[in-house]
Formats: sequence, C-alpha cells, structure tokens
Amino acid sequence: MNSFEWSAQCPIPMAGTAGQVLLAHGEGARLSRRLIRDTITSRFRDSGSSSEFGDAAIRSLRDARIAVTTDSYTVSPLFFPGGDIGSLSIYGTVNDLVVAGAEPRWLTFSLMIEEGLPLTLLEAILESAAEAARRCSVEIIAGDTKVVPKGCVDQLFINTAGVGELVSPVPPGPAFLRPGDSIVVSGDIGRHGIAMLNARGILQTELPVKSDSGSVQSMMHAVRQCSENAVRCVRDATRGGVSAVLHEWSEDGRVTISLEENWIPVRREVRGACEILGLDPLYIANEGTIVIAVDSASAKAVVDLLRQVPGCEGATVIGKVCEAGSCPVTIRRAMGIDLPLDEPSGAPLPRIC
Amino acid sequence: MNSFEWSAQCPIPMAGTAGQVLLAHGEGARLSRRLIRDTITSRFRDSGSSSEFGDAAIRSLRDARIAVTTDSYTVSPLFFPGGDIGSLSIYGTVNDLVVAGAEPRWLTFSLMIEEGLPLTLLEAILESAAEAARRCSVEIIAGDTKVVPKGCVDQLFINTAGVGELVSPVPPGPAFLRPGDSIVVSGDIGRHGIAMLNARGILQTELPVKSDSGSVQSMMHAVRQCSENAVRCVRDATRGGVSAVLHEWSEDGRVTISLEENWIPVRREVRGACEILGLDPLYIANEGTIVIAVDSASAKAVVDLLRQVPGCEGATVIGKVCEAGSCPVTIRRAMGIDLPLDEPSGAPLPRIC
Repeated sequence: MNSFEWSAQCPIPMAGTAGQVLLAHGEGARLSRRLIRDTITSRFRDSGSSSEFGDAAIRSLRDARIAVTTDSYTVSPLFFPGGDIGSLSIYGTVNDLVVAGAEPRWLTFSLMIEEGLPLTLLEAILESAAEAARRCSVEIIAGDTKVVPKGCVDQLFINTAGVGELVSPVPPGPAFLRPGDSIVVSGDIGRHGIAMLNARGILQTELPVKSDSGSVQSMMHAVRQCSENAVRCVRDATRGGVSAVLHEWSEDGRVTISLEENWIPVRREVRGACEILGLDPLYIANEGTIVIAVDSASAKAVVDLLRQVPGCEGATVIGKVCEAGSCPVTIRRAMGIDLPLDEPSGAPLPRIC
Repeated sequence: MNSFEWSAQCPIPMAGTAGQVLLAHGEGARLSRRLIRDTITSRFRDSGSSSEFGDAAIRSLRDARIAVTTDSYTVSPLFFPGGDIGSLSIYGTVNDLVVAGAEPRWLTFSLMIEEGLPLTLLEAILESAAEAARRCSVEIIAGDTKVVPKGCVDQLFINTAGVGELVSPVPPGPAFLRPGDSIVVSGDIGRHGIAMLNARGILQTELPVKSDSGSVQSMMHAVRQCSENAVRCVRDATRGGVSAVLHEWSEDGRVTISLEENWIPVRREVRGACEILGLDPLYIANEGTIVIAVDSASAKAVVDLLRQVPGCEGATVIGKVCEAGSCPVTIRRAMGIDLPLDEPSGAPLPRIC
C-alpha cells in the first residue's frame, strides 16, 4: 500500500449494480485504469503477454527496436471544429508512437461503417485521413472494412494501429522523475474537449474554439534538441486531460506533482466554457498537446525550443515534481492554497475521441 | 480490359440510390473489393501509401522483414457454436499473418464496448482471447478501451492488429500461378457461416454444426514441409468463402480456375442447410480453413501432409489452374457440365466475423 491509496477509493463502483460496464470505464481516467488493469491486462499477462499493457509497447525485432500502439476512434460528431474522425485517427495513433520515443512508420486503418452512411461523408473522411498521413509522413499499409446493419454502430468507428522505430534518446519514463523536475505543457489546454461540446451544441452560444487535433511530431523534435538525459517523460494529454497524465506519472514515479494554477495556459473562451459547465480544463481532453517532465536546469531551454514550433507559442512550465507526499497531485489555486487535484474518475464527456 | 471484365459488371450499384454504403460493401466480395480499391486505396495511394493495400502488408525494417495486418470483429451473436468474438479476434488476425508467410509475434487488442455490457460477458470474452493467444504463441502487447453510450454500438466490437516476421519460404503469390497447378483445401468448407446462421436461429432446427474458428498455424507448418517453390499461394477462406479467394487469385494471376463440384468437401449438415437456404458452400465464410495453390506434382504430398494435422483429415484437391478463359472461375457441376462460378457480390450474411 502506498501513500496514494486513499485517493484510489473510487467514488464510482467498478461496475454498476448489475455488474455492467459504465461509460466512465472508457474515459481514460481512474475507472479506465482499473478496468484495464484488473479486467483486461491481468488476463493477457496470465497468457504470457506483456505486464506493461499500455498505450505503446516497445519490442526488439532483430536489430530494430519498434513501438506498437492502437486506438479506436468513436468520436461524435464525425466532423468538429478543427478536425474530423479521419485525421484524428491518424494523428492520435501517430502521437502515441511519437511520445513513446518512436518515429512513426506504418499504420493500419480499419473502418466499421453503419449501413446507409453517405458515401460522400466516407470519402471526405478518407481524404482527411490521407492528408493527415501525408503530413505525418506515415504510410497506411493495411486495412479492413466492415459494414454493419443500421443501428449496430453509430455512423462510423475507425481503428488505427501504428508501428514505429525507436529514435534515441528515448525519454526513460516516469520511474526517472526526480524531485525538482519541471512540468511543461506545449501550449494552452482543453481545446479539443470544448470544441467537441461546441460541436454538439451543448454550449448555448457558439464559441470560436477549434480542437488542437494534430501531430506532435515537431514538438517532440524540439524537445529532443534539449541536452541529453534532461527529459524524463513525455505524454500527449488526451482522455482525462493533463490531470490523467500527471496522476499516472505520480503513481508510476512515486512522487507528488505540484501545479501552479496561475501558470496553466487556458484560452479565455475555453476558461469561460469550463466555468459555465463546472469543468476544470486540467481534466479536458487535448489531441495535439504534450506534457513534458524535464530536469529543472533544462526547463527554460525546452520551453524556448517549443515556442519556436508553430502553435506552441504558449508553451510554459506549469509545476514541478516533489517528494511523495500525501497526495499524488496538488495544485496551488488562485488564492494561494495547495489543494489536492483529484484523479478524474467520472465521464464528463463521452465519445470525444 | 481483360477477359474478366464481363463479370465485373456488378449487378448491385456501387452505392444505393442515395449514394450510401451498403451492407454488401462489407462482405469481402465484389462490392467490398470495389469499395476498397476505388474509394479507400486510391486515396491512401495518392498520399504516398501502399498500392497493395491488402490483408497483410510486407515491409522491411533494418534486417527484418515484417508483415502487418488488421481486422475488426463485429460478429453477432458474441458467442456461437465453436467460438466467440474473443478467440475469433485472435485467430483471424493470426491467420492473416500466417497465410502471408509470417510467424505471428505481437497483437494489439482494442475494445469498443456498449455501455451496460455485463462485466461477466466481457470477462468471458477476454478469457477466451487470452487462451487463443496462448495457443497461437502470440503476445498481446498494446490495447485500447472505448465505452460508448447505449445504442452507439451493438454490445461489443473488437479490433486486433498483428505484427509478424516473415519465414522463408514465403509463398510468392497469385502472379506465380501456372496452368496445371492444383487447388487444395485444408478441410470441409462452410462451417463458420452455417454455425452463425444456426446461432441466430435462422435455421428452424438446431444443426450439430460448429464453426471451424481456429488457428491455421499447424496447417501452414505442414504446407511449408512441401518441396521448395512448389507452393504458389495460400489464403484463409473467410468472408466470401473459397469463391472470393479463387476470384482474387484468378484476377491477380490472369488465369482461370476450374473446380470439380464432386471433389469439394462439405459436411452433410452444412450441405443440407445450404440447400434449404439456397446458398452455395463455396460462398460461405470459414474461419480456420485454408486454400492452397500448388504445383500439381506436389499436390498429393501437400494433401498427405495436411491430413496429418488434427482437423484436416478432409484435406483434398478441389480443382486446377487453367489458361485464362472467358470466366475467372468455373465449376464442373454434378451433371458434368462446366459452368461459370460467379464472384460473390451480395450480402448473404452480415456480421459473421
């Protein structure tokens, strides 16, 4: 039992009263991690599979070290401000490879289509996916197409899997977090989730917020130019937002991470939408924003390198790594008091990716 | 224009009157091929992706040659006589790698779950997938879990992608088909599709037919023991059945393939069900049965090797490769007359895999 177990007393039961899978099991937060660890990973580990069943796995194949990842995209609506399911399905999987330290090479692309989907819609999505693949310099090499009767899937789901080759230096991971390390974000947070709410008409007024959906390759390229061994870990802050990433790191690294609320970059429109809806931008999904833990001596260098990347002008330090305390993640709120930042556990927003 | 174009005049339009995707686009037959080639592959090729966007793609990575494949599983019901979506999702992707000439190494495993799915059902499916992975000696290394609201997916879809390493000798493919070559099947055909019909209660009476769902690794191992260069191509006869495989081979190899109806192994119960429903077993999906094209001098050896594999006692020659004639595939029906075997184009049975 470690010091974090108090916060692992999940307010939502593992399954509903009837032993069912809940929406919250898919939100990339606490319940997701429990479903994955207790229900899924445990079984595959017993069958000789990996114990670290995560976003991207690293394996050796002769003299190459490869990263392999997969993601299914169930986003609704299919088109949203700043993106669509086609480009999202490419960027999302590319980004998982990139933050694992790999150069993405090949993707598979699998369509699950509801009978009756307009062909023009499918074509627009495929065009968008092809354009995204071109931008990322990845090759789509294999695919599958299933069409199911009306009502068996909502319009269209896409799965992509990716294979990349590791590029040195690979960030060593959260076990290498050290007290004093800085936490950096590549730009303002919360745009993807708010853009999705916007697209669904949940906000009464239409906000000028676009998703950050895009490749993080050039951000990772910038981070790599930092002095060797300075970068501890990198992640894209998707489902569960920055908070989910930091909770995983604090648990895996056995440290506490302390944030400064005033330092966290959030656009005015995103902050406004969050206030209306009672959401914290730290829990909102991003689809093209990375979090970096770096030796504090190199934090300024990383921020400066990132700010030269188009779209990352808002890169900044948002907090630091501390000795393990009684909470995995704390945040100094505007009034100057350090408060625990809970791990996301509910399902504020299904089908955002 | 080649001699087969007459049969490419598809009786079902590419899209419905309103330009929609049809169920038949997903059945692995003529319309599927057109959707994949005209709508999907063309776009990815333009973006620098592969021109041979097929079941399994072969790429070089340093000194290794790898095969990569993907498949989504939308089978209904989730459990059927002889299998379930969990084991099917492992065997199906393993088999795609195996018939491409690869030793399967790693799989990704992605769940798309409908909110409310009983956890016990999910657990049983995961157990089955883990057991199948153990049998195939493949490691499940990465995964993803999405939960979508009720009505957005029918219970559960699974996507798996697979990475394998090529093992010499790799069957060279349909371009190497030569007139006189023999066509061999590893066992009786049509069991998976009929088992699915059975599971859905479409047949009034319950037939003792189990799906052939399983790994084809030991079959491929047997085929490999045949003298080098004798084997031209190998495929598992899934969606669209043996007919779909032979139509692809005849087109890609620019040959005609002639079958002998009397030689085709079909169980009595499967034949009976087909007669009642007006289906031809050649069009029915299998999930653990391979078709092999082999130099006729080695056909008997391949059959004898296969018959030593448990479950393949019914392996046999079912036809031969001929010079390209006016039809891609012909069949000598019971009455002794050669008739064209149409390419499957409709959707006799959705959600069988």
